[in-house]
Amino acid sequence: MAERTKLVAVTAVKTVPRTKPSNYPEPYASMMQGRIKRPLGDLFGLTNFGVNLTTLKPSSVSALRHVHSKQDEFIYIVSGRPTLQTDAGETPLAPGMCAGFKAGNGDAHRLVNTTDEEVVYLEIGDRTPGDEVSYPDDDIAARLVDGPAGKSWAFFHKNGDPY
Amino acid sequence: MAERTKLVAVTAVKTVPRTKPSNYPEPYASMMQGRIKRPLGDLFGLTNFGVNLTTLKPSSVSALRHVHSKQDEFIYIVSGRPTLQTDAGETPLAPGMCAGFKAGNGDAHRLVNTTDEEVVYLEIGDRTPGDEVSYPDDDIAARLVDGPAGKSWAFFHKNGDPY
Repeated sequence: MAERTKLVAVTAVKTVPRTKPSNYPEPYASMMQGRIKRPLGDLFGLTNFGVNLTTLKPSSVSALRHVHSKQDEFIYIVSGRPTLQTDAGETPLAPGMCAGFKAGNGDAHRLVNTTDEEVVYLEIGDRTPGDEVSYPDDDIAARLVDGPAGKSWAFFHKNGDPY
Repeated sequence: MAERTKLVAVTAVKTVPRTKPSNYPEPYASMMQGRIKRPLGDLFGLTNFGVNLTTLKPSSVSALRHVHSKQDEFIYIVSGRPTLQTDAGETPLAPGMCAGFKAGNGDAHRLVNTTDEEVVYLEIGDRTPGDEVSYPDDDIAARLVDGPAGKSWAFFHKNGDPY
């Protein structure tokens, strides 16, 4: 029976959501209400990249519009019709569509759900050390730092003051 | 119009499949007929990890059963009902299910489609240098090597002789 203690496969939408709704400082954390992340890769002990199944309730957003310096990102829409905001403007997405965000290309992005239906999508991002995040629309910047409990995000104002 | 030359988003199943059906040497390459890979991450210039939308026709397989030394892998079933083969035996999968394969854990895996319907799934794997692949059921081993055209897989018999 020993092998039964190792998770082989799971139905993604039935997994336990992350309890902390956002790592952002206020006032940004509160803006992430309506976003539910289910960490899937962590369930299987993956460390090189993360995979989340993320739900956006109506009128919610995936994140502040942002761009990573080192982390590539990829999304695949499972259900619902979010709008992708990038430097190119607004792009309507539908189930089965995907998009990738190359680290360091300077094109900030996020999803917004302007519909009355939930949006569900997969998001993948690697965990390259030294990653930094820029937010062109907001007074915030983030840096992945080593701490006593492992790597975590430190947030700063654009003038360098910590939150 | 310049921004229109940059791909923002795409419908995954409408993208162009990879033309080379398999990197394996024979007789293994021919065993991969019925497997169609659509590289999605590459379309957006991603390099830290790859994302494919892969179709398995009835009676086809995802790969030889294998395990990576450095590369984490993750799959999400979009449609169809493949069977996951691991050291734990056979696990039936269904749409919306996922599985992760941690590098170096020694548990070899693959998907087989024993049904009359196509299987479509997303597969994600990172590109950590120095990756090697072991195949417990077959006389083959693989190593990611640097060559004149970039990184590529070199295949060997288990006694070390090259294919």
